[in-house]
Amino acid sequence: MPRAYNFGAGPAMLPEEILQQAQADLWNWNDQNMSILEIGHRTPIFMELMEETNHTLRRLLKIPDNYEVLFISGPARMQFSMIPLNLISKKTQAGYLISGIWSATAFEEATKVSRAYCIASSEATQFKDIPDYSFSDFKENTDYLYYTTNETVNGVRFPGLPVAQGIPLVSDMTSSILTEPINVNDYGLIFAGAQKNIANAGLTIVIIRKDFLSLIDKSTLPTIMDYETFAKHKSLYATPPTFNCYLALKMFQWVEEKGGVDALYQANMEKARILYDFIDNSSFYYCSVQQRARSIVNICFNTKDKNMDDLFVAKAAENGLLALKGHNKVGGLRASLYNAMPIEGVKKLIQFMEKFSREYS
Amino acid sequence: MPRAYNFGAGPAMLPEEILQQAQADLWNWNDQNMSILEIGHRTPIFMELMEETNHTLRRLLKIPDNYEVLFISGPARMQFSMIPLNLISKKTQAGYLISGIWSATAFEEATKVSRAYCIASSEATQFKDIPDYSFSDFKENTDYLYYTTNETVNGVRFPGLPVAQGIPLVSDMTSSILTEPINVNDYGLIFAGAQKNIANAGLTIVIIRKDFLSLIDKSTLPTIMDYETFAKHKSLYATPPTFNCYLALKMFQWVEEKGGVDALYQANMEKARILYDFIDNSSFYYCSVQQRARSIVNICFNTKDKNMDDLFVAKAAENGLLALKGHNKVGGLRASLYNAMPIEGVKKLIQFMEKFSREYS
Repeated sequence: MPRAYNFGAGPAMLPEEILQQAQADLWNWNDQNMSILEIGHRTPIFMELMEETNHTLRRLLKIPDNYEVLFISGPARMQFSMIPLNLISKKTQAGYLISGIWSATAFEEATKVSRAYCIASSEATQFKDIPDYSFSDFKENTDYLYYTTNETVNGVRFPGLPVAQGIPLVSDMTSSILTEPINVNDYGLIFAGAQKNIANAGLTIVIIRKDFLSLIDKSTLPTIMDYETFAKHKSLYATPPTFNCYLALKMFQWVEEKGGVDALYQANMEKARILYDFIDNSSFYYCSVQQRARSIVNICFNTKDKNMDDLFVAKAAENGLLALKGHNKVGGLRASLYNAMPIEGVKKLIQFMEKFSREYS
Repeated sequence: MPRAYNFGAGPAMLPEEILQQAQADLWNWNDQNMSILEIGHRTPIFMELMEETNHTLRRLLKIPDNYEVLFISGPARMQFSMIPLNLISKKTQAGYLISGIWSATAFEEATKVSRAYCIASSEATQFKDIPDYSFSDFKENTDYLYYTTNETVNGVRFPGLPVAQGIPLVSDMTSSILTEPINVNDYGLIFAGAQKNIANAGLTIVIIRKDFLSLIDKSTLPTIMDYETFAKHKSLYATPPTFNCYLALKMFQWVEEKGGVDALYQANMEKARILYDFIDNSSFYYCSVQQRARSIVNICFNTKDKNMDDLFVAKAAENGLLALKGHNKVGGLRASLYNAMPIEGVKKLIQFMEKFSREYS
């Protein structure tokens, strides 16, 4: 039986060839006669894996030498605290752009543990758009401008860089990393949880400009929350999530084999285009996110009758199209089309949607 | 080819039947037609898995209802900060017993982020023993007494409960959990990193008495470091390390099948006994840890000639006996005999040690 297409927002679909390789390596990794789950993190062969994972990501994103790549054991949400605690001094503050649930949560946490203000929010649009703002919205002594490149819950994406007047950008790229090209030099810090485009849940990757490692006094900061700790110990201060790092390497190599980020971006744009086109041309489905702000990896949509959502999700699952329910906080339907989702999956979804609309409209 | 015996201190050996089950579930878990790596953490079927993992551990350790079990994404080392930040108020402090590298590191972190004092340390013995102390070593307003049940680096174990005069005990059981019986009621908080006896690296389990959840004001504590966050959201506030939780359930079920913690304790005692007996009766090997304080899961030993250690490790590996090098900080040799190490592995190690000593003495 063929595996299903998993449209979940994360933990998300992984390429079949990687799952098969992982199955083999779960028994005997790299002729070590032990499982990848059992390998010690301080063995030379595992430290080589960490180096290779780091360098492969560096090649993929063309990360300059003045940036560190950190592999952090834990959820992306931990960065909501670590970023303000590492970057905001007693005399400075941070500015947040709020374009959905995740940036709103990050802002709330920043105000809890440090000082931050909201530059602009698109909450008044129910996060159907990105926020508009002007330079006069920036306050003095702003350390960084925080934004979420792509909001998974609301299906909203910044189509380009926010204008920041020289203030360093800090971005949550959990759902967008490796799905579209970026210029790392535009950022002070980028982070991404692994469970969408990198590996399984439990690993967060941070790309940080080296001068950001020691901006402020951190003498009372928990050692495990200090980016310098990770940089100094090559992410081996505490035991790293070894299996996730292994899987990240496999995934980075897979991205390279597929032609790199540019090639996947083209594929992702095409996947998103055919689905949005179908929705926009349908009288049964609709997408209420503004055109300029539409996500290319989380396509949020609705049927004319929201009482039909559960039936849609159930019938889709019967057809091997899984996890199409929208996030609890917003309802509706959502198809996540990360790198590992083949266009065949999207075409099958469109066929199903077409059939469903004929039967139930 | 049979798999090797992995004597590493962690990430450590896992039972073969669990590795085989995980291989199958990596492709299609629980008839979901998707990998266990891909399953969403908020799906009903995954939430059931979390409940079952929780309840199976509760059965194994007879955890009373007034304790919460928390599943935290991240290394055990994060607890070195979380414990003082959650438990020590502005008017109190914590007392630490230092019996090896890990308790020393935990103490250092507690003094960095809060207020703590050392009740007693066995550093003067090079951590070849547990520390002695008297009641007069306790200071006023001591919130908890912290100790490390078993020190992996030094091979030192507390043979019984430290006397605490009613002060709540907090214990790092990363290397001992499920290897010997405990009475959870004796503790305010127990924690354990997963990569020795529970699952793969990236998960930490915390067992906490419910009144410990809200001892102090935590209004500026990072939300992700607050035990209440995990308790309130059933460990699903942020994405949990889903695969590690799955593996933990498999491992807990395996412990139950083996007869529970008492049965494994008997097996562990026997494994440790035959190895220590061999070492003590040898004129080539020796163990300098005091009898009363010897670990039953990390057997640290030396050869008469430390220049021979690397050769020992290499020759052992040729014989399918892996990762016998002592920790960098103390050198020498170390055999970790956690629950998943069968007695056949220990017997094979002893045979090898016997042969090696004949050839090189």
